[in-house]
Amino acid sequence: MTMEQHKIDEHNHQHIKAHQRRFDFVAEDVKDLDGVMQKLQAFNIAIPSWALGTGGTRFGRFSGGGEPRSLEEKIADVGMIHALNRSSNSISLHIPWDIPKDADAIKAEAKHYGLRFDAVNSNTFQDQKDASLSYKYGSLHHSDKAVRKQAVEHNIEVIKYGVELGSNALSVWLSDGSNFPGQLNFRKAFQNTLESLQEIYEALPDDWKVWIEYKPFEPNFYSTTIGDWGQSHLLASKLGKKALTLVDLGHHLPNTNIEQIVSLLLMEEKLAGFHFNDSKYGDDDLTVGSINPYQLFLIFNELVEGMDARGLNHATGIGWMIDASHNVKDPIEDLLQSVEAIKIAYAQALLVDTAALAAAQQGNDVAKAQEVLQAAYRTDVRPLIAEARLREGGALDPIKAFREQEVRAGLIKQRGEKTVATGL
Amino acid sequence: MTMEQHKIDEHNHQHIKAHQRRFDFVAEDVKDLDGVMQKLQAFNIAIPSWALGTGGTRFGRFSGGGEPRSLEEKIADVGMIHALNRSSNSISLHIPWDIPKDADAIKAEAKHYGLRFDAVNSNTFQDQKDASLSYKYGSLHHSDKAVRKQAVEHNIEVIKYGVELGSNALSVWLSDGSNFPGQLNFRKAFQNTLESLQEIYEALPDDWKVWIEYKPFEPNFYSTTIGDWGQSHLLASKLGKKALTLVDLGHHLPNTNIEQIVSLLLMEEKLAGFHFNDSKYGDDDLTVGSINPYQLFLIFNELVEGMDARGLNHATGIGWMIDASHNVKDPIEDLLQSVEAIKIAYAQALLVDTAALAAAQQGNDVAKAQEVLQAAYRTDVRPLIAEARLREGGALDPIKAFREQEVRAGLIKQRGEKTVATGL
Amino acid sequence: MTMEQHKIDEHNHQHIKAHQRRFDFVAEDVKDLDGVMQKLQAFNIAIPSWALGTGGTRFGRFSGGGEPRSLEEKIADVGMIHALNRSSNSISLHIPWDIPKDADAIKAEAKHYGLRFDAVNSNTFQDQKDASLSYKYGSLHHSDKAVRKQAVEHNIEVIKYGVELGSNALSVWLSDGSNFPGQLNFRKAFQNTLESLQEIYEALPDDWKVWIEYKPFEPNFYSTTIGDWGQSHLLASKLGKKALTLVDLGHHLPNTNIEQIVSLLLMEEKLAGFHFNDSKYGDDDLTVGSINPYQLFLIFNELVEGMDARGLNHATGIGWMIDASHNVKDPIEDLLQSVEAIKIAYAQALLVDTAALAAAQQGNDVAKAQEVLQAAYRTDVRPLIAEARLREGGALDPIKAFREQEVRAGLIKQRGEKTVATGL
Amino acid sequence: MTMEQHKIDEHNHQHIKAHQRRFDFVAEDVKDLDGVMQKLQAFNIAIPSWALGTGGTRFGRFSGGGEPRSLEEKIADVGMIHALNRSSNSISLHIPWDIPKDADAIKAEAKHYGLRFDAVNSNTFQDQKDASLSYKYGSLHHSDKAVRKQAVEHNIEVIKYGVELGSNALSVWLSDGSNFPGQLNFRKAFQNTLESLQEIYEALPDDWKVWIEYKPFEPNFYSTTIGDWGQSHLLASKLGKKALTLVDLGHHLPNTNIEQIVSLLLMEEKLAGFHFNDSKYGDDDLTVGSINPYQLFLIFNELVEGMDARGLNHATGIGWMIDASHNVKDPIEDLLQSVEAIKIAYAQALLVDTAALAAAQQGNDVAKAQEVLQAAYRTDVRPLIAEARLREGGALDPIKAFREQEVRAGLIKQRGEKTVATGL
Repeated sequence: MTMEQHKIDEHNHQHIKAHQRRFDFVAEDVKDLDGVMQKLQAFNIAIPSWALGTGGTRFGRFSGGGEPRSLEEKIADVGMIHALNRSSNSISLHIPWDIPKDADAIKAEAKHYGLRFDAVNSNTFQDQKDASLSYKYGSLHHSDKAVRKQAVEHNIEVIKYGVELGSNALSVWLSDGSNFPGQLNFRKAFQNTLESLQEIYEALPDDWKVWIEYKPFEPNFYSTTIGDWGQSHLLASKLGKKALTLVDLGHHLPNTNIEQIVSLLLMEEKLAGFHFNDSKYGDDDLTVGSINPYQLFLIFNELVEGMDARGLNHATGIGWMIDASHNVKDPIEDLLQSVEAIKIAYAQALLVDTAALAAAQQGNDVAKAQEVLQAAYRTDVRPLIAEARLREGGALDPIKAFREQEVRAGLIKQRGEKTVATGL
Repeated sequence: MTMEQHKIDEHNHQHIKAHQRRFDFVAEDVKDLDGVMQKLQAFNIAIPSWALGTGGTRFGRFSGGGEPRSLEEKIADVGMIHALNRSSNSISLHIPWDIPKDADAIKAEAKHYGLRFDAVNSNTFQDQKDASLSYKYGSLHHSDKAVRKQAVEHNIEVIKYGVELGSNALSVWLSDGSNFPGQLNFRKAFQNTLESLQEIYEALPDDWKVWIEYKPFEPNFYSTTIGDWGQSHLLASKLGKKALTLVDLGHHLPNTNIEQIVSLLLMEEKLAGFHFNDSKYGDDDLTVGSINPYQLFLIFNELVEGMDARGLNHATGIGWMIDASHNVKDPIEDLLQSVEAIKIAYAQALLVDTAALAAAQQGNDVAKAQEVLQAAYRTDVRPLIAEARLREGGALDPIKAFREQEVRAGLIKQRGEKTVATGL
Repeated sequence: MTMEQHKIDEHNHQHIKAHQRRFDFVAEDVKDLDGVMQKLQAFNIAIPSWALGTGGTRFGRFSGGGEPRSLEEKIADVGMIHALNRSSNSISLHIPWDIPKDADAIKAEAKHYGLRFDAVNSNTFQDQKDASLSYKYGSLHHSDKAVRKQAVEHNIEVIKYGVELGSNALSVWLSDGSNFPGQLNFRKAFQNTLESLQEIYEALPDDWKVWIEYKPFEPNFYSTTIGDWGQSHLLASKLGKKALTLVDLGHHLPNTNIEQIVSLLLMEEKLAGFHFNDSKYGDDDLTVGSINPYQLFLIFNELVEGMDARGLNHATGIGWMIDASHNVKDPIEDLLQSVEAIKIAYAQALLVDTAALAAAQQGNDVAKAQEVLQAAYRTDVRPLIAEARLREGGALDPIKAFREQEVRAGLIKQRGEKTVATGL
Repeated sequence: MTMEQHKIDEHNHQHIKAHQRRFDFVAEDVKDLDGVMQKLQAFNIAIPSWALGTGGTRFGRFSGGGEPRSLEEKIADVGMIHALNRSSNSISLHIPWDIPKDADAIKAEAKHYGLRFDAVNSNTFQDQKDASLSYKYGSLHHSDKAVRKQAVEHNIEVIKYGVELGSNALSVWLSDGSNFPGQLNFRKAFQNTLESLQEIYEALPDDWKVWIEYKPFEPNFYSTTIGDWGQSHLLASKLGKKALTLVDLGHHLPNTNIEQIVSLLLMEEKLAGFHFNDSKYGDDDLTVGSINPYQLFLIFNELVEGMDARGLNHATGIGWMIDASHNVKDPIEDLLQSVEAIKIAYAQALLVDTAALAAAQQGNDVAKAQEVLQAAYRTDVRPLIAEARLREGGALDPIKAFREQEVRAGLIKQRGEKTVATGL
């Protein structure tokens, strides 16, 4: 199913008048309107291939209808999202769930929707049917050299797929860890991981990066071998310039100040990018901005400040991706909500009066610093986002357009009521 | 596979001398040795039918070999555990994973191993293949009366199975909750739950109880409709005397003082019993006593004190059950470790000098109170547990005996390498 | 120092044009504008007498200048706040820090600023110089009857002061708890507390309430005798209709769903009211809305829904008070920011499309429910709050006005650079 | 007050028979008894000078009697502890609370009790009376260069005092951080801190170290500038070989796996040592081993393994210190309990069958690894600790001896009922 442009145009036609009034109002107070709009229009967030189907928990999974049955259908779903919001121009594949049989054909398919391929993701947290060795006790950190070798080779194979698709980064998330005290020698586990990553690092093409994710718990519940930013950063430092730390918002202990970590990684030139989601308890993988939108804004405030300080291009300087699980919402609607929340936080961060903030910080005028930040946060920037979409050819209200066009009903008709996306 | 008594006797014969030395040493300092030994010998912890197979997480599951393929094989595995430790004389069934086709035959089978049936557990957190309505958005709290009705009827059917097997309690754990702000009207969800529970309550036989479990999160990640002890207690109070609150050790927010909750529920005559496990982060479902054994001791200290204050029989006054997930250990070994940890905590609690503790508490001699508690906790009570096992016909060292007899290899030979227990 | 009306008028005159444009814009989309404005204008939040000075931690305290040295000066500071925001028309006294020597004179002083007296607060968490018995090991829960008696009598005395001032509620926060396992018999501590509260309850005038606060930790770090809402609710239920549970936003374990607790307490007719503040880790006592403003909105969403369901008057149906510690900001500015944040959350909650939300909830349209809530939350309601202030005679921008008038410099000149508010 | 040796001898004479029986029993199973006893006898933990008085919270402080009024009396109290347990042969001073007026006299005084001086501690978290600039907004991270300079100079002065006393390490804990989003530029705060530390580092004598402590929150409640081990490690790496990371057990977010951090810091040769205490919620500063003794054992298990892997002397390879707050116990008794808990954990770790553990780890025999660890942990090692004390001239039961001799009563008689230790 494709979202034809004329349907989007009709939708926009219906809502343009109300939109214009709102946009004019908020635009009047934006200092560098052109600059802000250009940045908003240029900003895209990658969609992971595994996020198009309904997710589940260890207790069960309740299918939705019309889920994509193949890589092609996943690409079509990202295409649908991008047609609606013009902010999701890439897809991040997960190997082996999404092995492209014919890379050229898949690239053409993606190009048809205006999409390219973001970082590729390896999987050593599950055993594949034909695997000779098991990852039950880990992969890159495994006490058995043969298992480490199998995992290293898998990662190198993933790079190969990525090269064919035009990606330029390998994203590594390890579930390696332990469930019980005594299970692991932490030092050896770290050193095995380092050695394995070094072999993968050697296989990286010149213009590639490897992104090293960290996570404190789940699916292991006593330790994780890359458990926090400090451990990821230590590995990345030992590996070299092409190794960077990836931040998944849900991968932190309760109350962690994530924005401070983001600031320091940027300072150290070691921030790879983000897996966006929201959470209340652990790696809940909820819709971005659904639980704590102010924290998201604070993170973007650090990003904008830190990227500007280093002269990075906001759109391409680091990697932006959603990583959420859609258990009770239509996955496409959920992703549209997530992208909207990210762009709202980004727009608010762009509105921060940086000179006033810097002055307040220098003078320790704490109340004023809060006033400056919250003035930006409390601004209703939705019309700016809508305008950016409009200018790029997207819908003023993507979810409304999605519902008006009865897209899900169409997908169910086409794909069936009980489908399961690969990898779920 | 059955553990023949003569093999246990041989094992004990090998180790009896070393054991006797240790037992004599520790026994010398136990004031009421006969009373303590009688209590330890009488103490049993139920094994849930779903714990005999390898567990998993949302990221995957790594099978072990020789897992039970049927209810009969699950009973055999509990029989094996009980033969070894003489402390696991009952099994708790989960419906519909373990529907007994012929109740009398199953009861006879259990009796053969010296087992009876503990509380029965309903399941409204997954959709069954033939279900007409889905629990995707909850069961007893559902906004649709028809879904609530289906869930109520399922619970009543579970009671029926339990009556046939000689159980006398229904254990209700609801995953009902919400993933996002706005999804639920909390008040209506609570009132729907209450109304549903009232209908189930009406169906309870005279000598039955209903145990109401609480849990703050997972599989829902914004709210759970029975989220804490206060909510469970409020429901139980409104329902009546047969409704009680069940405590699962993993179902608490970080840093919760569980022992205080246990004390107050006992005081209010509303403590149903326990689902034992251990955890570091959330509902990790790890081996009991593997993460924080002192907390387990503190809970038992409240239990012994509170049950004695009410004159309850320790063995039968409340319900004792393990509820853990065995992802990286042999499930039978894991359960043997859990039972051992529980009995150690119980024995330590029995050794507390209650008069000295009460005096220290009355006089606010805080250092002394700690000395009294830790004197009991630091005592090596393993010989007391071993002796209790010995007197009941079990093995001095159950895991060693299990390994010496190569039980798992026998089970794999009999059942196969790649089996999956029902419900996993 | 008094804020003269003409200065506020001048300030408003300067900003009225810009304000009018913003107000007109947002007002156009508000359905029941008159109703909303009336509610916003009627809404007031009490200021605690201990919040006018600079707060500290156990590591130290860094004084600000011009802090109030007497009850009269505290009243003057609240008067200043109320003159600016017209939303802080009452003061909540803490005994013995603020014992009014001449109740009539103090009442007249307060009246002069348009203020009345909110709930009175007792203090049994510190020893007073002339105290015969110590609260080192607790007060209402103490193992020694004589200490309990002293604490009960203090509370009754506080009621007496409150009656003289025209208050109608006693707010009880106990620090009673334990630092170490074994220190307390939890059951006896609870029963002693209940017995003590019953004696205080007996002394309540007919139209009075007693508000029972809960808190999980600090200043005791193992247990608190009224540690969670369940324990407070259990006490309040046993006491009777005049006993209610008070919610302090900072008094929860990490990740607690506070809004659900609020909803259930309202349902049970047991919600006394709030101590507002914000926090990231524990009882951090930060400016309201400075850390997680969305959570504040979600709480107000439950409040508006729940109060409407019971037909309660929003302004007077329950108690509203700030309870924060101003360690690095000017206390008056900090309080102005807190009141603003509360009113913003309240206004956003008033804008929720309740019919659409109820329909989405009934139909389990989770994405839609989120859209409805966030549509209200993302609205920039600051012009509505400013307009409400304007209509009541307050300043369009209270902090700006406070700074323009150099109020703090005036207070320092009048009171000195190194003053310490009583109780700090 | 001094504990005369003959009183200790009398105490030991009374208890020697019972002790001998217990020691003989446990010693029989210890493989390298001589080696273990030598290590236990050599192991000492420093006492901080601020721990001899009663501690408090921001809500108040309840004095005990007989607290030391001077540095000399603090040394006498540590001398008392050391006489009783022969495991506390050093004292860690806090400047400016404990400025030694005559270094030689103080050294002689300490020597009289068999004590030396451990690391010296600077204080830039409070303003001293004569300070020209305030640390209200931080010290080494301050936006104002002049404040940073004052703080750097203070640290250099502390080194000077330390040199005079024979210390060889400076321990730096900064409270620098922020209470509100926007207050700080995280990057600049980090860089200012680094620059300040570099100046201090330059002033270190050749054989000195600087220990950099981290803490996630309190007294700042939004961010801390050295907030986690990763930030401390990053600073220490940039500074050089003499800079190391100090671990305070209470300075972690909920559920942090501290033992893993310890293992990795040891691996990186960056572990300075420990501030021991225990906690349930935050930096509760409770008696070591009072809340989670198993975690303490797991930490020591990593320490023993990691120090042995690097060939470090257990007693001197890293720094051992208690850092707790004694709010409801006699400080001397509290410290005796803490030292006992540390030595128990250490002794248990020495009993771990390292060969069996390494084999289980290599073979992923998780159940066996747990059996090995818990076999050591469940052993009652108290007789080994008592024997080590006995051989060094200490008391078999230090707290009992302390109470029998009515030491506190003597101190009260000598020093008075209402004294306050300097710095409290």
